[in-house]
Amino acid sequence: MSAPTGNPYARIDDLLSNVRNFKIIESTLREGEQFANSHYSTETKIKIATMLDQFGVDYLELTNPCSSPQSRADLETICKLGLKAKILTHTRCTIGCDAGVDGVDVVIGTSQFLREHSLNGKDMVAITKQALEVIEYIKSRGCEVRFSTEDSFRSDLVDLLSIYKAVSQAGVNRVGIADTVGCASPRQVYDLVRTLRGCVSCDIEVHFHDDTGCAVANAFSALEAGATHVDTSVLGIGERNGITPLGALMARMMPSSRDYVLSKYNLKMIKSIEDFVAEEVEINTPFNNPITGFCAFTHKAGIHAKAILNSPSTYEILKPEDFGLTRYVHFTSRLTGWNVIKSRISQLGLILSVPLYTELQMTDDQVKEVTAKIKQMADIRPLAIDDADSIIRSFHLELNNGEGQKGQSEQNGQNAQNGHVEA
Amino acid sequence: MSAPTGNPYARIDDLLSNVRNFKIIESTLREGEQFANSHYSTETKIKIATMLDQFGVDYLELTNPCSSPQSRADLETICKLGLKAKILTHTRCTIGCDAGVDGVDVVIGTSQFLREHSLNGKDMVAITKQALEVIEYIKSRGCEVRFSTEDSFRSDLVDLLSIYKAVSQAGVNRVGIADTVGCASPRQVYDLVRTLRGCVSCDIEVHFHDDTGCAVANAFSALEAGATHVDTSVLGIGERNGITPLGALMARMMPSSRDYVLSKYNLKMIKSIEDFVAEEVEINTPFNNPITGFCAFTHKAGIHAKAILNSPSTYEILKPEDFGLTRYVHFTSRLTGWNVIKSRISQLGLILSVPLYTELQMTDDQVKEVTAKIKQMADIRPLAIDDADSIIRSFHLELNNGEGQKGQSEQNGQNAQNGHVEA
Repeated sequence: MSAPTGNPYARIDDLLSNVRNFKIIESTLREGEQFANSHYSTETKIKIATMLDQFGVDYLELTNPCSSPQSRADLETICKLGLKAKILTHTRCTIGCDAGVDGVDVVIGTSQFLREHSLNGKDMVAITKQALEVIEYIKSRGCEVRFSTEDSFRSDLVDLLSIYKAVSQAGVNRVGIADTVGCASPRQVYDLVRTLRGCVSCDIEVHFHDDTGCAVANAFSALEAGATHVDTSVLGIGERNGITPLGALMARMMPSSRDYVLSKYNLKMIKSIEDFVAEEVEINTPFNNPITGFCAFTHKAGIHAKAILNSPSTYEILKPEDFGLTRYVHFTSRLTGWNVIKSRISQLGLILSVPLYTELQMTDDQVKEVTAKIKQMADIRPLAIDDADSIIRSFHLELNNGEGQKGQSEQNGQNAQNGHVEA
Repeated sequence: MSAPTGNPYARIDDLLSNVRNFKIIESTLREGEQFANSHYSTETKIKIATMLDQFGVDYLELTNPCSSPQSRADLETICKLGLKAKILTHTRCTIGCDAGVDGVDVVIGTSQFLREHSLNGKDMVAITKQALEVIEYIKSRGCEVRFSTEDSFRSDLVDLLSIYKAVSQAGVNRVGIADTVGCASPRQVYDLVRTLRGCVSCDIEVHFHDDTGCAVANAFSALEAGATHVDTSVLGIGERNGITPLGALMARMMPSSRDYVLSKYNLKMIKSIEDFVAEEVEINTPFNNPITGFCAFTHKAGIHAKAILNSPSTYEILKPEDFGLTRYVHFTSRLTGWNVIKSRISQLGLILSVPLYTELQMTDDQVKEVTAKIKQMADIRPLAIDDADSIIRSFHLELNNGEGQKGQSEQNGQNAQNGHVEA
């Protein structure tokens, strides 16, 4: 348990929380195959499984081998790769096949909606009986077994707790809560997981769809309430707009669980894994993706840029270098500030030559003068870095000429491209 | 207060919650201008302001007129448009200009980080004194005034509550909480807003960055705890990877506040507003965007598709028609199921001709047989709708020929393109 800090809203661990001790069930090869654009070849599946294994996920969940002959063959192939991650498959609650997996994730719908429209009106007694038979069978094959309800947040609480208690007593490894339609909010999640934690002795897995934009927050709230395993997929791909994205979950966990995350997961692989999957399923990484969105570490407003140059943690809760990425500070917009331009001038090596022995920086007033010129131009049209640099160089030349025609002393900045200053 | 339903996790209103009574402060023209790619022309600003006004947002927040001469001119232009939405501008806590706005959003950093690196080490006494002077001045100009701290979740709680209480007593219209670095989690948000609600009598505005993927969930938690106003931008554009997106917030609010949202906001405009802004700032709508992501209402797995065909609410918490959009069910993948193929066969008008007087549907066993053929092909390569339809038609022809060479009775399906069945 960590000590409280000056900030009373800093996280304080409690006995319930698994924020610093969670596991990942990576489902790009199951939930992700339900994404509209997915059509994985065997080679693609092997590559994704291998990369995720190197990244450090605890489990890989693959499509049910009964889905098609190729699904079965691919599952068998991946089981034989000798990965560190355990291999799971995912089935409806019927006695199926296991094809060499380490475990089976069983799922069954318990909501009113699903029981009427998907399960032909089965009642909870019949559902529970069927679940216990399947669990017994899977255990008899020597596999791990998880039992999950589906659409858990629109299910009757008493029904839910009854079936979870029954399967826990039957010896499942994990029970699962699934927000199949993406309707849950963080406080609902916390309450349900917290309640469930008191009813079962096994691990608790959670699965959140992102229809209402809460899949990352819900996973975090579930861990706070005692969940142990989170389902993810790369970039969140899955049915409809998908589930908790692996990368975004890492972004969420880093501020609260930095040491644990760094000890377990190879964060520098996130970008290459996402790039590979994005290309395979023909999507672009969202511009606003945590960590890898093209502007996730780009700062633009003058006041932000100034503070970032002083100390990056002022406006950043994540460090780009933890992910093998770099930070950029925009300096060519109408929102720029003179502190940023001052930094650019220094990066360009533009110093003033004076008749005596010293070389001087521009004064703050001079920097403010050239900043005003840049803002004026940026009001008229988007400025490329070359444009802004030209304005700065021209101003610098005038100053030097005014000071006595001593010529320029400048070097080209190495690190800046496309209107950015690397901070 | 609504009555509890069969589902104990359905939201029950409490006196604190503003989930069914919230207002939007739309900041695409302020926070959004800090997005890396933004460079709005005057015409673009007018178009965005007009569309958002028609959509029904309560406030529009624009860039500080002191940022550049064009910023001032554009603000003055938009103030004169006669929109229903109130116009705000946003300033650091210095006495600035108001250019005809209805209100001023004042912001000042209170965290240890910001006080050291952005405000040259000012202490809280000096910050409070300055805030009160600025508030007095803005009120004297007849404008609404909001006072917000910056980086609120890394500020000392006692400092925060002290300054909020002081400005509330000085008569501000709103106090603001800002998660400037995107570090807050939903339970932290609930706790802080809940605490603040007991300390001030004015409205409470919240502003969440999305660095760790919680900006939508945090806004929802804040409303549950008594916040009154949420800052948004179109697609979430802003500094770094941005803030709470307007569309995603609507997705979040619909399940809990359907009547209120429909009475107030023109949801069918979301797609056109997002498309316009995305084109202006040269980004793509993220594939996983709630509501408007290209697959937000696409269903693929066989079991999902079956249930969706029976009743859309089984796997959808949002109705596409509320947003002027349509639903698609994928039927050409290896994950397809025979219920979906049955629906496609009926859509194609493929019925069996038999010697006597009746025309019959295929039997379920026949549908399962052709489904297996489609899955077999989909294992080999991605199937276009034409491919799947060809398999179905060929199978149908064989059946009819087997039944007595009576020729085909078919119509072309009208609604399906690109491998989708409209459900």
